[in-house]
Formats: sequence, C-alpha cells, structure tokens
Amino acid sequence: MNIVEDLTKIVGVQNVLTGEMVSQRLDCYLPAHAMEALCVVRPETTEQVSMIAAYCDGHGLALVPQGGRTGLAGGAYTRPGDIALSLERMTTICPVERSGLTIEVEAGATLQAVQEAASAADLLYPVDLGARGSATIGGTIATNAGGNSVLRYGMTRDQVLGLEVVLADGTVLSSMNRLIKNNAGFDLKQMFVGSEGTLGIITRAVLRLRPNAGLKATAFIGLSSFDAVLELFALAAAEADGALSSYEVMWPSFVDAVVGRGNHRSPLENTHALYVLIEIESHRADALISQVVTSGWERGLIDDASIAQNIGQANSFWAIRDDIDTLCAGSDPILLYDISLPQTHMKSYIDSLQDNLHIYLQNAKMFVFGHVADGNLHLVIRPGEHGHHDAIDALVYLPLEAIGGSISAEHGIGLEKRSYLHCSRTEAEIDTMVRLKRALDPRSTLNPGKVMPLS
Amino acid sequence: MNIVEDLTKIVGVQNVLTGEMVSQRLDCYLPAHAMEALCVVRPETTEQVSMIAAYCDGHGLALVPQGGRTGLAGGAYTRPGDIALSLERMTTICPVERSGLTIEVEAGATLQAVQEAASAADLLYPVDLGARGSATIGGTIATNAGGNSVLRYGMTRDQVLGLEVVLADGTVLSSMNRLIKNNAGFDLKQMFVGSEGTLGIITRAVLRLRPNAGLKATAFIGLSSFDAVLELFALAAAEADGALSSYEVMWPSFVDAVVGRGNHRSPLENTHALYVLIEIESHRADALISQVVTSGWERGLIDDASIAQNIGQANSFWAIRDDIDTLCAGSDPILLYDISLPQTHMKSYIDSLQDNLHIYLQNAKMFVFGHVADGNLHLVIRPGEHGHHDAIDALVYLPLEAIGGSISAEHGIGLEKRSYLHCSRTEAEIDTMVRLKRALDPRSTLNPGKVMPLS
Repeated sequence: MNIVEDLTKIVGVQNVLTGEMVSQRLDCYLPAHAMEALCVVRPETTEQVSMIAAYCDGHGLALVPQGGRTGLAGGAYTRPGDIALSLERMTTICPVERSGLTIEVEAGATLQAVQEAASAADLLYPVDLGARGSATIGGTIATNAGGNSVLRYGMTRDQVLGLEVVLADGTVLSSMNRLIKNNAGFDLKQMFVGSEGTLGIITRAVLRLRPNAGLKATAFIGLSSFDAVLELFALAAAEADGALSSYEVMWPSFVDAVVGRGNHRSPLENTHALYVLIEIESHRADALISQVVTSGWERGLIDDASIAQNIGQANSFWAIRDDIDTLCAGSDPILLYDISLPQTHMKSYIDSLQDNLHIYLQNAKMFVFGHVADGNLHLVIRPGEHGHHDAIDALVYLPLEAIGGSISAEHGIGLEKRSYLHCSRTEAEIDTMVRLKRALDPRSTLNPGKVMPLS
Repeated sequence: MNIVEDLTKIVGVQNVLTGEMVSQRLDCYLPAHAMEALCVVRPETTEQVSMIAAYCDGHGLALVPQGGRTGLAGGAYTRPGDIALSLERMTTICPVERSGLTIEVEAGATLQAVQEAASAADLLYPVDLGARGSATIGGTIATNAGGNSVLRYGMTRDQVLGLEVVLADGTVLSSMNRLIKNNAGFDLKQMFVGSEGTLGIITRAVLRLRPNAGLKATAFIGLSSFDAVLELFALAAAEADGALSSYEVMWPSFVDAVVGRGNHRSPLENTHALYVLIEIESHRADALISQVVTSGWERGLIDDASIAQNIGQANSFWAIRDDIDTLCAGSDPILLYDISLPQTHMKSYIDSLQDNLHIYLQNAKMFVFGHVADGNLHLVIRPGEHGHHDAIDALVYLPLEAIGGSISAEHGIGLEKRSYLHCSRTEAEIDTMVRLKRALDPRSTLNPGKVMPLS
C-alpha cells in the first residue's frame, strides 16, 4: 500500500503535500507546533472528501480534518502517521438568498469572507472573533465558536440551518436545510456542531443571516466592584431593549498590561477596580447607550465612563479588549484558558485562583477578561520559569466542578483539555459520547484521540 | 412474569393504572382516540423512571413516554400491549435563579405553570402555544415545540440549557448544565430535543429565562397581496429594532370562518386578500407599532389596519388567530397540517394546493394561517364526505420535496407523518437516525415505531 500515491489518485499530485510542505504549517494557534503528518490532502469537492474518508476508514488510517488551524485546544493536531485533511480549496460562497436570509458556503471559506459576503448584501453574519481572517466556517462550526456577539445572536450553533457532512465511512450526509423551523425527525446537524471533527467532516453549510441592526454605540466604563459589574449588566440588558450586543469585562491587570505594553491610550484617566466594554446595536444606539450610562451613574454603579464619539474611538476601545497578541508577546511561556461559570461565583473564583497561583508560583501573573454576560472568562497566565502546565491546569479546572462551571466555554476540548473533561461532564455523559462516536465512526478514523478520553 | 405486579413494586399500586383508568384517557389532541395500553405507570422520581426503563428493556416491553398528550402527530400513541409512562406526578418547579436567569423543572410540569413561575419573578419563559395548560415541559422539549414567539426567541431547543434523560437501559444521563456557553465535549442534550421520546425519557430540565421585554403592542392588518405580506415583514423586522415578537398571517378563508362561526368581532370593516397580526414587545412598543403601520401605509403595503388600544382589544385580535376550536367544531372530519417552506414559494404552493384539492374533492375546504416569519404554515382541511386522509396527505406533502419544504415545522413526525419523512429527509439522513436509535436504544424499547420508518 502506497498511501500517498493512492491519495494522489483522488486529488491530484499537487494536492497531497508531504515533507517540508507539511512541516512549514502550524497545527494550532497556541501552543503552536510545526505540523507532523504523513501528508496533507487537499480535496476540491465533497465527492473527493468522501473517497478520502472511505479510503482511510478502509485502511485503518487516522484522518484529521483541519480548518484554519487557529484553534486553542489542539483539535487539529496531527501525529506523524496521520493524514491531515485540509478544506482550504473548498471556499465557494454562494450568493446571499435575500428572501430567506440565508447563505450557502463551503467549509473552507474563511469567517471573514462570509462576513463580507453578508455585509455586501447589507446583512449580518453575527459570529465574530479575532482569528476571523484565517478561521474557516467549517472550523467554527466544528468547534461551535462563540465570540463577541453571543449575548445577542447566540453561538455558531444558532447560525447553522443546514450542514453537509461526510461520515467516516464516506457516506455523504446532506442536511442542507434552509428553514428556521424543521421538526422532520432528529435534527442531525446538532450532533456535528461542536464535535471537533470526531463524528464527521463538515463540507458545506447553510447559514442564517440577520438584518443589519443599525448603528453601534460603544462605551468603556470603570467600576468599583464586581457586584457593580453584574448590576450594570442587568440594567443595560433591561434598558437596551434587546439591542445589547456585547458586555465585556476586563480586570485591571489585563487593562494595565495591554495599555502599558501595547500601542493604546487608556480611555479613562484613572484606574478602576474593574472595566467593562459595552456595545449596543440599534437604530437608536446613541440614545440607548447614553441612557444606560446615565442610569448607571444615577444608581452609583459607574465610577467613570467614556462613550465613543466616532467609529475610530470605538475601534480603539475594542483594540484594547482584543489585543491578546500584546499580552502574549515575548518569549515567556503563556497559558491561555477559556472557562465558563455562574456569574455569582466569578469574583470568588478569580480571587481564590489568584491566591492559589501566588502560593504555587510567586512570580506568576494572571490577566483576566471575558464575555461576562455569557458567563465566559478568559485567563492568560504567565507562570514564569518554574510553572508546570499540568499543575496550573489543575488549579484552574478542578475548582470548576463544584460550582457548575465548564472547562471549555467556547474553545472546545481538543487534545489539551481531554483529561479534565470529567470536571464538567459526568461518567454517563462521557460514556454516551463514546457510544455516539462508535455508532458513527466505529473504527475511530476521524480525529482519533480528541475530545474523549477513549476514542 | 406479571408485568403490572412488577411495576407496582416500583411505583406503588395507585400508580399503575389499568382497565378503565387507561381507556378514559385520550392519547392525542387530534386525532383523539381512547388510549389502549397494558397499563399507565406514573413514577414520582427519576430513580423510578430508571427502574421502569430497565425493567421494560430487560423484558422486551415497549415503553411510551407521555406528557400532556396534546400532540398532533400521534407521538404518544400506545398499542394494546405497550406500557405508557406518564410523568404527571413529576411536576416540581424549583425557584427561579435570578442571577443566571434559569429555572430547573421536572418534566411533568405544565408549560403554563413554568410560564407563571417565570412571570412571578418578573421574567419570561418565551415558548407559548394554545395547549399551554396541559402540555408539559417534557413534551415540549421532546417535540421541540415552536409557537407564537419563535421569531424573537427561537424554538424550545433554544431555551434548554440542561437536561436529565433516562436512557432505554435505565442509565440516568444528567446534563443539568446552567451555562449559556459550554463546549466541553458533545452537547448531548441536543440529541434528545425533538426526538419525540425515541432516544430517551426526559425527566428534568434547566430552562433559560429572559428579561421581560416590556409592553406589547398589537395590530391587525389587511393587505391586498402576499407580496405585500412579505414586504411588510421585512419592513417591520427592520424598523422594530429586534423587538418584533410575532408576525402571523391568515388567509381570508380562515378569518371568515372563525369570525363567522365564533364569538368574534372583525377588527377591520372590509374584507382583504390577506391578514396579518403583528406583535411588538418593547418599552417603546406603542411608538414602534405606530411607526411600522405608518411606514407600511406610506409604501402602499397596508390596505387597512387596527392597532389595539388596550389589552382587551389585543386579546380579541389573538383570539381570532388562536380559535382553532371553532374551526374544528362540528362532526365533520378535520385534518390539520403543519408545514414549513421558503416564503417565496408560499403563495404558489397554497394556490396550487387549493386547485388540486378542489379537483380531487369539490366540496373540500381549506383554511390557512401560520407563522409566516418562520416559514411555517398551518392548514386545516375539511375534506367532506369522500376525502381519503392518505390522498390529502399526498397532496399536501409531496410538493414540499421539490421546494425544500418540511412536512413538520413544529409538531413532529410521531406516527402520522412517518411514511412521508422521505419528502423532507434523504435516505442517508434516515439511515443515520436509525444508527443513532440503535446506539442509544438497541432493543427499541422507547416509543417504538415512531419518527422513523424502521425502529
């Protein structure tokens, strides 16, 4: 059996990459490695994907679907003998269907390309995240990506109306539904959203678009307590009349580090115990944000606030929130976490994690920010010289079990978090995941070893 | 083996109903039959549900989970030897969790009881439908119920954060997640939402509540064409700034029949080619609805409109839309359909169905209404004396395949629509449903014969 030769027969010689063309690629955004794999196969059609899957399944080969390889949990990681399946040549974006507010796209199209296609039709594809230029639609569906607008529009799952998926044995499962309501039997696509390529290879999708919600208004706010953060959220949600699109929290360590090291100007003069970035999308966005800020003042929740006067200023507020690159710059090791937990536990969880981290590693630094409205916090930890990744994982993850938190809010499990899955899922849940995996991929051909402890 | 005696040991003698206590029950809202079953078992706890499932699974008995038995597709139908599992004693509603906006409930609680619990905390459980007083939360989850507010809040699937499910073999699968974002492995609850009791028995749920959206404003509108209905929808969606909660269409045959036979006053003086009921929920609802109606006038989309001046008048508008009982009254047979299709095909589909129906049965009458914004139409057909149910099914369902429609928008497949599933699902999809069924219920213990052609 000459695997490379056989795959070449399916996709052509230019589309089976080996040697340096493999090792030049990174398999993950963080931690990034040079890819090792037997080869990277780049099909052009669903039929080719089906033939590749059937070939691998029949020959006991591991097939790892890859999108933009911008994940943070190692879901696209390959071992030396694995076959990487890149959907980078399947990038077709069909014209927007204006009447049904849908768009059909191939899985390899980037998130940004889809956003732009929607925008050109004066519509919105509401999923947005920092890696928009390289993350693919297939990857965002396979990981059920979140991002900055979940509060208003939901996660990627909520945008997917139809999917075409290739199963491990090569079966093409076409569920290209375009309807908002369709209760004709099981909603199979739900199984594949968030399954990180372990149950099927997403090749095509029908996505839901939204009407443009009008103008955006943005405010950067300083507050004196976490209670005030939660109270202001309740107030903003009530007063913005469904138009609140983002409510992002930043701890001062985060703002200080980003503003101090990066190319930013602080929107507020003094320092505060906590910061919040609010965005409202509405035809009356300016009036609504003024009203929220005024009410917040009157109730004593806000210490200081800056409302963006133009798009440039709004972008400069977001640039602080989004500047993870500055936070991660330098040669020191960086650990990035993505957790969710009930809002009422956030303050005590972070305080106690900070204390424990300090006991374990005197020089460790932690920067906290996130989508507080969704219960989702991101932690960037610089452990310094003596920090063990595993020990810090334990400090972060283990306390989540008792408070009903999740070890992955939006990044997925991949390879990195697999051994902590039991903190967020019961044994019966993990067993049922394995049952599902065996039903759809009995030979464990697709992305083996990811998500579940046994697969 | 004495089945009734064995089940009595699990739930007590009062909770295994036989004989007349079974036949007094109806198994469906329409078409309603007196229930036939070996017995009805009424567990009080999840542990009892688990013991019952394990017993049935071990002894080759069919177990049919039942909620309020208000379904319209025969999903709760039992055969004489089946065991009906009623969750009517599991009705606990835990206190609302205000910080996370969630509520935990047992599956047998009625939809109305959950709505009222939310409302008492000044919050909203947004799923609403006519059978609210008897439909249970478990039943609405098992069928992924839709209703009048899907446009703004989504279907039942979008309200479910966590589920506790008992599998066929008695395994208790507890996924009582309370977080909006949780990507820790497969989102297993998605498999059970809309599976109509064929994959597991839903015993408990964590539901998402919403802030009260303020006041409601309602308008009853007459229009001269279906194009105007679609254009007014686009206009209302854009101008109402995310606050449009209902956009219901009614054909004149529907309005005439309900107003003529029922106890209603027509909101408009003259008759129109089509009618629309709009509802906006917002702190500024009155201003927004006036604005929508004024813009509609100015663009020539609206022929006549009545804006409700008080809650009583709004209720009287809704009473027309909801009065299916008047439409179904009398001894003539009635067939009720629930389909979805792209909005652009609605007019030609209904016109052509009307023509075909008339060719087949000169005296047949059809009344059309529905959630046009969601692509969902309901048809009430009075075939008259000589109409065959099967023939009318074929007239309604077969044309949907070519236009990407669904034979079930929100009522499910149950028993009634099983043989038309292929109109809305491919062979690979149906095969995958069967694979899933076999993985979770290999002996086909739970609700056998429902949803899929083979199970």
